[in-house]
Amino acid sequence: MPHPARHVFVCSQQRPPGHPRGSCAAKGASPLLQALWGELQKRQAYDQVAITYSGCLGPCEGGPNVLVYPEGVLYQGVTPADVPDIFEQHLLGGIPVERLVAPPAVW
Amino acid sequence: MPHPARHVFVCSQQRPPGHPRGSCAAKGASPLLQALWGELQKRQAYDQVAITYSGCLGPCEGGPNVLVYPEGVLYQGVTPADVPDIFEQHLLGGIPVERLVAPPAVW
Repeated sequence: MPHPARHVFVCSQQRPPGHPRGSCAAKGASPLLQALWGELQKRQAYDQVAITYSGCLGPCEGGPNVLVYPEGVLYQGVTPADVPDIFEQHLLGGIPVERLVAPPAVW
Repeated sequence: MPHPARHVFVCSQQRPPGHPRGSCAAKGASPLLQALWGELQKRQAYDQVAITYSGCLGPCEGGPNVLVYPEGVLYQGVTPADVPDIFEQHLLGGIPVERLVAPPAVW
């Protein structure tokens, strides 16, 4: 595995139904992860981008949470429809997608 | 949750017994994760360091794998005994623990 230029962590934490914190899984992390992996395959960007699911990243209420390193940019409320922009602008283009970035109070 | 200065991802991937790739879970990821969280608590370093478990990071044969961002340093074959050095030298001191760093061919 090459050292990727950008590494995307998708919170996939599950919690029981009715749990007060909710969870990224309940907010759509799984179809989002599939969309990200699909875009990675479509673009054959394996040398530039890695995508990994993760445990809880903290601010559950705004999930699904997507954290991109090395910048440490946290995206919140991401949907599969946002995936092309995330790839084009940020993961390959280097410019975070501002409309999805968590506010400073959150991250 | 504050934006941590360093974020540690511990591969916790499981695979069935006898699987040819093995897994970080089978190589001790769970006690390692507990040791890292224990050290975080002991040092009350929550503002500086985040520790999250993750899915497969790729080079399974050398696990358990521990990836530290923003540097993108991959440690391999980490044991609970290595945790104080990782905290003292790298997570708080900024200098990677060379003896644990994966070779360039791996990452």
